[in-house]
Amino acid sequence: MSTNHETLLSRSIRDVLLVDHHVHGALKNDVSQGEFETLITESDREIPAWMSQFDSQVGFAIRRWCAPVLDLPEYATAREYMQKRLTLGTVEVNRRLLSGSGIGHFLVETGYRGDEILNPEEMGRSAGRLASEVVRLEAVAESLAASGGNAKDFPDQYVQALARSTEHAVGVKSIIAYRWGFDFEPARPANDEVVKAAGQWLEGVAAGGPLKVEDPVLLRFFLWAGVDRGLPIQLHTGYGDPDLRLDRCDPLLLTPWIKLIEPSAVDIMLLHCYPYHRQAGYLAQVFPHVYFDVGLGVNYAGVQSEQIIAESLELTPFSKLLFSSDAWGPVELHYLGATLWRKGMTKVLQRWVEAGDWSENDAVRVVNMVASENATRVYHLNRRHG
Amino acid sequence: MSTNHETLLSRSIRDVLLVDHHVHGALKNDVSQGEFETLITESDREIPAWMSQFDSQVGFAIRRWCAPVLDLPEYATAREYMQKRLTLGTVEVNRRLLSGSGIGHFLVETGYRGDEILNPEEMGRSAGRLASEVVRLEAVAESLAASGGNAKDFPDQYVQALARSTEHAVGVKSIIAYRWGFDFEPARPANDEVVKAAGQWLEGVAAGGPLKVEDPVLLRFFLWAGVDRGLPIQLHTGYGDPDLRLDRCDPLLLTPWIKLIEPSAVDIMLLHCYPYHRQAGYLAQVFPHVYFDVGLGVNYAGVQSEQIIAESLELTPFSKLLFSSDAWGPVELHYLGATLWRKGMTKVLQRWVEAGDWSENDAVRVVNMVASENATRVYHLNRRHG
Amino acid sequence: MSTNHETLLSRSIRDVLLVDHHVHGALKNDVSQGEFETLITESDREIPAWMSQFDSQVGFAIRRWCAPVLDLPEYATAREYMQKRLTLGTVEVNRRLLSGSGIGHFLVETGYRGDEILNPEEMGRSAGRLASEVVRLEAVAESLAASGGNAKDFPDQYVQALARSTEHAVGVKSIIAYRWGFDFEPARPANDEVVKAAGQWLEGVAAGGPLKVEDPVLLRFFLWAGVDRGLPIQLHTGYGDPDLRLDRCDPLLLTPWIKLIEPSAVDIMLLHCYPYHRQAGYLAQVFPHVYFDVGLGVNYAGVQSEQIIAESLELTPFSKLLFSSDAWGPVELHYLGATLWRKGMTKVLQRWVEAGDWSENDAVRVVNMVASENATRVYHLNRRHG
Repeated sequence: MSTNHETLLSRSIRDVLLVDHHVHGALKNDVSQGEFETLITESDREIPAWMSQFDSQVGFAIRRWCAPVLDLPEYATAREYMQKRLTLGTVEVNRRLLSGSGIGHFLVETGYRGDEILNPEEMGRSAGRLASEVVRLEAVAESLAASGGNAKDFPDQYVQALARSTEHAVGVKSIIAYRWGFDFEPARPANDEVVKAAGQWLEGVAAGGPLKVEDPVLLRFFLWAGVDRGLPIQLHTGYGDPDLRLDRCDPLLLTPWIKLIEPSAVDIMLLHCYPYHRQAGYLAQVFPHVYFDVGLGVNYAGVQSEQIIAESLELTPFSKLLFSSDAWGPVELHYLGATLWRKGMTKVLQRWVEAGDWSENDAVRVVNMVASENATRVYHLNRRHG
Repeated sequence: MSTNHETLLSRSIRDVLLVDHHVHGALKNDVSQGEFETLITESDREIPAWMSQFDSQVGFAIRRWCAPVLDLPEYATAREYMQKRLTLGTVEVNRRLLSGSGIGHFLVETGYRGDEILNPEEMGRSAGRLASEVVRLEAVAESLAASGGNAKDFPDQYVQALARSTEHAVGVKSIIAYRWGFDFEPARPANDEVVKAAGQWLEGVAAGGPLKVEDPVLLRFFLWAGVDRGLPIQLHTGYGDPDLRLDRCDPLLLTPWIKLIEPSAVDIMLLHCYPYHRQAGYLAQVFPHVYFDVGLGVNYAGVQSEQIIAESLELTPFSKLLFSSDAWGPVELHYLGATLWRKGMTKVLQRWVEAGDWSENDAVRVVNMVASENATRVYHLNRRHG
Repeated sequence: MSTNHETLLSRSIRDVLLVDHHVHGALKNDVSQGEFETLITESDREIPAWMSQFDSQVGFAIRRWCAPVLDLPEYATAREYMQKRLTLGTVEVNRRLLSGSGIGHFLVETGYRGDEILNPEEMGRSAGRLASEVVRLEAVAESLAASGGNAKDFPDQYVQALARSTEHAVGVKSIIAYRWGFDFEPARPANDEVVKAAGQWLEGVAAGGPLKVEDPVLLRFFLWAGVDRGLPIQLHTGYGDPDLRLDRCDPLLLTPWIKLIEPSAVDIMLLHCYPYHRQAGYLAQVFPHVYFDVGLGVNYAGVQSEQIIAESLELTPFSKLLFSSDAWGPVELHYLGATLWRKGMTKVLQRWVEAGDWSENDAVRVVNMVASENATRVYHLNRRHG
């Protein structure tokens, strides 16, 4: 195979420091095999007794690629792996896999079950690298509601809270894909609509109802407040847990909204996108402010991520594609996000170079763009970090 | 190529006895080339004079892989192939190709043009293997209507008829994808709705109207009766003949119904799925009761089935993927379903093993799961057959 | 790699004269690098200063495959390439790349920005090959409106104008995908509906409004007039510029209309289709009057077009797939359409032949069908051209 001998290209991919432009914290504490298995799937259901979540592409990839970092042989059994993981302890496992990932800068989204995982500062410290924050638009509202508040002032209070919470952030994130889908009315909602929707929601919360916002008017209001804030907006797109309706996360459904916000010059970062990554590549080609990545899908497709990576390199200008792991929890996902991306890029680009379709220098340039240059430009990372 | 030398993996794939978890009978009688060509396509239209249906992936695969089993050279012409087929006779051709398929157990769906094809017992005898029955939910209703019946008693009568006809069945099948699409109201219909819809349908039938049920209330009622029956429910998904609207057979449209029936613990078997097999893989990952296969598409994509098989191994846990041929009629489809699956699995898994991504032992384990273990567990085949 | 040594198959693919069944004219005049970059993307937006459109698959393919035809080394820089292009001049560049493409017959669609590009006669002359015309249905109407006209007579006048303008045409084309989407009411509109819609449109035009037809009744009327005209109807499908909603260009949405016009025996040519080419292959299998190609996507996916070409060879009978470049403007797109198709077909088919799945003779037959025989039959090109 083409990956067996070292080339300028393979060395470049191996050594490039990545910006992981969408990631969450690594687990703080030790977990049992049962707990671990529930964290290496997007399913939130109990795992049936007749199966192991290790029997999947991501499970095989953990046993193949993470085991050696824990001083185990390749293809160690799941039981051996989990035992060794407990022996070493989560702090050491995090340290090894985070530093071994070659991720140089983590853009950490903090809005989901933050008490179980490392915060951005701890992530940076554990990896010995940089970390910045991405703020979840819905989480800002839910914090606000948790501390009371009235409907009439809600729009202003949200804008102020967003400004405060993003003071040091490099981007914001919307999960409207989860809470509603991309088939929303694209226009900015009128203030009285927002006040009315906020009223219903806040009353519900006051009466002990759920904090979770599912009202499409409010979700749109957060998105537009994100546009006004001016930072790049990450949108969960495509594949995720069963809370979402996958077909309503096709990024093409966003087209009207993408057009509406085009004058604002705010950048739209479509996350994951699988299995709609070809559709995302189309949007990235035709709209100057649209970017995307194929994180998450890369992790969960394991060795098949090579094909997904190749498919992500079709229509998009190379200045519009980014790297992310979208890892949450088990640090294996952070490590594999980087490792499988490196392996997939090496196989795909090496094949194209060897066939004479691409020059090796061009391939190295594309690697650097996707690995870090595009993210550095879009998120202004140089401005913030040395 | 990696497939040229024998390995533990390639031997395992060659020798594994398959459970074909969704298949129909093989043709009973000899057919002309013209008739045969109408049976190796999902089109139900007359074949234009300027084309041969043999000029397709499945046609090339028949000439490549079935010809030698009929003692012809590889790539025999269509004319030579059909001549030899007639000389040997359908009984002998069925015997050779069914026994040569290495399918050890056929789960035969009997609801479509049953008089032209072998029934489950005849299939088992011709192959020298086991055969079990899968009952089509709509066919049970249509038998009932054909023998009269009144609307008020219809719901109860259907439930009783389903119980009777599935006494020895291992599963049921719904073709709501054909008759309506997956964009149906997911909730169980109320009894009076069912009675009303049954009344209209039965009156129509009595007046000489079509027996074929297309009323969505009735189709949903059958599905829910299937849930109550408790056997695994197979659903035609994706690719099929022009009776269906392919975009309304995207399995993601089933999501609300999949969630509704989750408490029943009944297993959902998504059949075929092409070109929505990545979407099916997502559902299989996130819902414990969802399974799928890529039969039919494998046959009709011929050598390209290698890619489809690889794509079927992305998100799904390996305990959720099954083998099927979905063959109906020409026994070449039964043989190719098995043969192309073996070839595709060999190429894909051998590549992953040789690249060092998967261990050979793991690859063999996955082969066994997909080939038969998953089906054996879901359909309780051990309980029924020695 | 299998492409490095010459075989009967590789020679056949290299030498076959192509019918480009959907193409536009090449640029008439020299262009600057800035102008050129806006023409090698489907985006119609200004190209941001931080990126070059050359950093894309199509840009890399230009530097790799077109540079040598302009006597530059492979992988010449964009700047070197553009300089050389200006030095040689557009006439010479057109001559070299058109004649070097091995396209023997251009079916030129003339309805878009015709003053900037060569007309069919000029295309034929520049290439030293044949050229025929395909007439855009919407353009006929817009010419009519530009020269006045009243609503009541519009339906008849349109039919007459279409007859006149297609007197020497080999086909017609609809861009209803751009102007509305494929989710239109499929039935032929009633005459009074058409008159009413025409009235509103013509009044608007008379009052200085846009000539561009976006009324779905009129767009459907054009389509049905095209059916009555009896020539093959090309439909823009899938990928294109941001004027369209890509998800509304899924060819499956056309299914009801495809069924309605089936009795007319008029052929439907689905153009481009990416990323819905598997869906197009399904339609081509099940409906005798449906054809498709994967042009445009081939150009813009560059080296990844190999995968797209393989995917286009799944369900379709081989008598239903055609070649097109869909090039407009830079003659590099005409050249690459042909060159990338030849390279992709060579890699894909050579792989299948070497693995023993296809015979070499069959592969050569399929090449000839897709390259020219299918188009020659459908468009009756022999009848028109010696």
